[in-house]
Amino acid sequence: MKQSHYFLKTSKTVSGDDTMVSARLLKQAGYIRESVAGRYFFLPAGQRVQQKIMAIIKDEMDKAGAQEMLTPILHPLELWKETNRTSTTGFELMKVKDRRDAEFALGGTAEEMFVDLVRKFEISYKDLPFQLYQFSPKFRDELRARGGLLRVREFIMKDGYSFHASEEDFKDYYEKMKGVYSRIFERLGLRTEIVESDNGYIGGEYCHEFVVESEIGETKYLTTTDGSYAAHEDVAKFRKYQDASDEELKDAQEVKGVGIIGVEELAKFLKIPVEKTTKTILFETDKGEVVAAAVNGIYDINETKLKHAAGCNELELASAETIKKLTGAEVGYAGILNLPKQVRVIMDDSLRGRKNFECGANITDYHSININFGRDLPEPERFYDIAMAKAGYDSPDGKELIEKRGIEVGNIFQLGYHYTKLMQGAVFATADGRQQPYYMGCYGIGVGRTMAAIVEKSSDEKGIIWPEAVAPFTVHLISLRGGQEQAEKIYRQLLDSGRQVLYDDRDLSAGAKFADSDLIGIPLRVVVSEKTLAQESVEVKKRSEKEAKLVKIADLAAVLP
Amino acid sequence: MKQSHYFLKTSKTVSGDDTMVSARLLKQAGYIRESVAGRYFFLPAGQRVQQKIMAIIKDEMDKAGAQEMLTPILHPLELWKETNRTSTTGFELMKVKDRRDAEFALGGTAEEMFVDLVRKFEISYKDLPFQLYQFSPKFRDELRARGGLLRVREFIMKDGYSFHASEEDFKDYYEKMKGVYSRIFERLGLRTEIVESDNGYIGGEYCHEFVVESEIGETKYLTTTDGSYAAHEDVAKFRKYQDASDEELKDAQEVKGVGIIGVEELAKFLKIPVEKTTKTILFETDKGEVVAAAVNGIYDINETKLKHAAGCNELELASAETIKKLTGAEVGYAGILNLPKQVRVIMDDSLRGRKNFECGANITDYHSININFGRDLPEPERFYDIAMAKAGYDSPDGKELIEKRGIEVGNIFQLGYHYTKLMQGAVFATADGRQQPYYMGCYGIGVGRTMAAIVEKSSDEKGIIWPEAVAPFTVHLISLRGGQEQAEKIYRQLLDSGRQVLYDDRDLSAGAKFADSDLIGIPLRVVVSEKTLAQESVEVKKRSEKEAKLVKIADLAAVLP
Repeated sequence: MKQSHYFLKTSKTVSGDDTMVSARLLKQAGYIRESVAGRYFFLPAGQRVQQKIMAIIKDEMDKAGAQEMLTPILHPLELWKETNRTSTTGFELMKVKDRRDAEFALGGTAEEMFVDLVRKFEISYKDLPFQLYQFSPKFRDELRARGGLLRVREFIMKDGYSFHASEEDFKDYYEKMKGVYSRIFERLGLRTEIVESDNGYIGGEYCHEFVVESEIGETKYLTTTDGSYAAHEDVAKFRKYQDASDEELKDAQEVKGVGIIGVEELAKFLKIPVEKTTKTILFETDKGEVVAAAVNGIYDINETKLKHAAGCNELELASAETIKKLTGAEVGYAGILNLPKQVRVIMDDSLRGRKNFECGANITDYHSININFGRDLPEPERFYDIAMAKAGYDSPDGKELIEKRGIEVGNIFQLGYHYTKLMQGAVFATADGRQQPYYMGCYGIGVGRTMAAIVEKSSDEKGIIWPEAVAPFTVHLISLRGGQEQAEKIYRQLLDSGRQVLYDDRDLSAGAKFADSDLIGIPLRVVVSEKTLAQESVEVKKRSEKEAKLVKIADLAAVLP
Repeated sequence: MKQSHYFLKTSKTVSGDDTMVSARLLKQAGYIRESVAGRYFFLPAGQRVQQKIMAIIKDEMDKAGAQEMLTPILHPLELWKETNRTSTTGFELMKVKDRRDAEFALGGTAEEMFVDLVRKFEISYKDLPFQLYQFSPKFRDELRARGGLLRVREFIMKDGYSFHASEEDFKDYYEKMKGVYSRIFERLGLRTEIVESDNGYIGGEYCHEFVVESEIGETKYLTTTDGSYAAHEDVAKFRKYQDASDEELKDAQEVKGVGIIGVEELAKFLKIPVEKTTKTILFETDKGEVVAAAVNGIYDINETKLKHAAGCNELELASAETIKKLTGAEVGYAGILNLPKQVRVIMDDSLRGRKNFECGANITDYHSININFGRDLPEPERFYDIAMAKAGYDSPDGKELIEKRGIEVGNIFQLGYHYTKLMQGAVFATADGRQQPYYMGCYGIGVGRTMAAIVEKSSDEKGIIWPEAVAPFTVHLISLRGGQEQAEKIYRQLLDSGRQVLYDDRDLSAGAKFADSDLIGIPLRVVVSEKTLAQESVEVKKRSEKEAKLVKIADLAAVLP
């Protein structure tokens, strides 16, 4: 492609809010341009990169036996009603009506669509397992778009859905898909960690994110130095403090401690270790329930974990009035003793087995101490994990947890029977002729976000450094003064040999051309000038290296990818 | 691909409303499935066909120097307001609001988006011409969907937009694009005619449809047997009757003819040739104007032509009350004499130069005869072409017009300055430094409709007959009893040699497998059975031919595509 006629216009300035390297470089180099916030044009060179990423994903998906297809963009809203997903807010679902008043969702994922398709056919156990996937636009009605392609309102997602006769079959398949995804990202030049994560609004019981470590990422996760454990902070487990003392039960007391609220201060005041204290916090759920969440004072509460324990989609801190009304006390003195029945108490397992512990007295300025299960309050039927994992804690396998941030580029979900039980007729015929719901998984990759992650991981102060597998072109041929005629010849030869060449034939200074070339980031630069031709050579430089070398024109083909 | 695990499920029955061959066969063979009316799933084999069609289009577009990119699906509605396209109804535009109340169009085409992108950059005359294109979903809020992929509410369109420094440059480019399109459809196995057509809601002055002749098509066009002229009936020109008589002017008269309305009957009654009569019909436009359209009695009015003459988007027959109020007469006696000023008279050029002609008297039961321009009414400043072309008339180049129907698979439009003048900043810098709007063209191909057209043209009573270039697979390998082991070997060999093979490894009867194979329509069938193996052979049959032949296994590679 001749640059003089290619719609690839670099610019020195970009809008001021691009704090992220990938957003700034992709715009400056002419790969993407914003339409309105969170909605991007992929310019010709950007679309080439996007297509190369998709081709690699497709290649690995097809090798794994998955079958590409395509659903409509507009999903009949009735389907989303079948699974109650119109009422969960996680997706920021956009809806649209046609002029016959039929309602549609602009989908964020397409579980319902794929199940609806498959249930239109008679499926036999012999057909299973299979996976269908597509590359298709997805929509998220985000309140805030940020960071170029990292958090957008519209993007191409590769979304795949697998159908299985049994959970056992699915489990093997899920492990296989981990391998498929790891290979995909490896071919794309990305190192990913497989991080347990929250299944959120997708449904199902467990899932994993493929995360590229990056400080600017939105995924906060905990892992061990050797990577033996990695989990999103919303699901990360850790070895919790367990009260193993055999101390005798002391008499319960209510102690006045005016205005003492923080656990450290309180422990000092009460002359007890912090681990004897309890944090009790009241929340109101989207179902109108009030929940008292309690953890050992040394921990904090993770709201996502709490949502799962409470079985709700949203929750927020209870208001001071609600707290006063239900506990009788001002904010800061709530405890797990003597709460009215309409308050559901959810206790973290760091409370299990404790002796002589402290908790708020539900009386303003008062704290109860030497509280014991079985005597002062019944031991709950079930303890939950609602405590926030943090760096320095021990992983479930006993190693120190460290905290990292990263960009989620892909995810895989166990869906189980979540959709097939909600959607009628999503069944297959077993070998003995029974009708049984199929067991499902789903597998997503955000194409644009992957593109941004590649740039986040591979650039320098001058611009992008594309890995060869996704570079829009593999050779950037540049003619300088006196080199045009020979460059044109080389351009033709390289095209004839099937190479992907961007040829900068523009009438610009060497400085301007080199600056553009560094910004655009094609892996190999070939310069043809009077000077190089004096030695019957061209100058070849890798974008990732500092040094250029002269290569005889006759030898050029041999050094090119 | 092994058919036992491929999501390609044929069926003998389809929904009853599929009168069109392509709709029925594509569904039965498992290529497409309806989500809701007018919105289709492309199943894996269907998506393969769709991708092959897109690859051929892309190849020819890229060869012509056009550059693929991608716009967001949601178009900011402000852009459509800039060009007044929110108020034209031709597109059946769907709109959607996000939760910040920003409004978007689900676009039917993307002129505004491309102009909006290009105007974000500084364009110089040196950059021109260039063409940007995309493959992207398009939406039409049709009241009625019909015929499988032929008229849908959602489809993938290849839409391209070219930018030029001048009209001259565009005209050459437009001719070049005719060639590009003809080659695309030829490679897709389609014979297309290039038919002048109505530019409709796209804007611009002229355009052409690429039409595949087919009785079930929605495009009605007129052409000559040698194809020297072809035009959609809405724009078709023809040599009109011209009154060349030098007869003397007779006295105008009002003749009573109760209830005589049809021109034939009237001519007989008045004892004049039909070509002396005039049809005058009143319409109300969407702008609230009343228009009296008049053509020579031997012709009918074409409403699309009339809309262009009247400069409106919609029109409908005036109501009896309106006619009575404005003409003073009942329906059927309207004429072009003495109409009140608020009625705009639009005369077809078949009225030019007539002598002693008839027209309605604007008095119930009365007809005016021997009317003459210049004496009884002023000759209009301008005559228009608002008459309907029909088979049997003479083409502009003097040959007999024949009427055909066809499927519009592509179209190319001159847009001129239509968008660049309405959208601020859509300019380039000329060589002498002035800012000037660019001149534009646009170029569309409906991918799904093209797929349907291929099936309409290439099938038999048993199923589809895919042209090799777009077939989902090129070889359909079928194992019958005793042939499984050898078939498996051949399958591996064919895959290793890079061939696209669908391998029917299912445990079904020969009859069922052959019926499926004929329905699916892969160009070449290779059968491996005990019987063929007895002769160290396989049976090879082209889908398009009746006869099969035995081919030695050793020779198989040589006969395959």
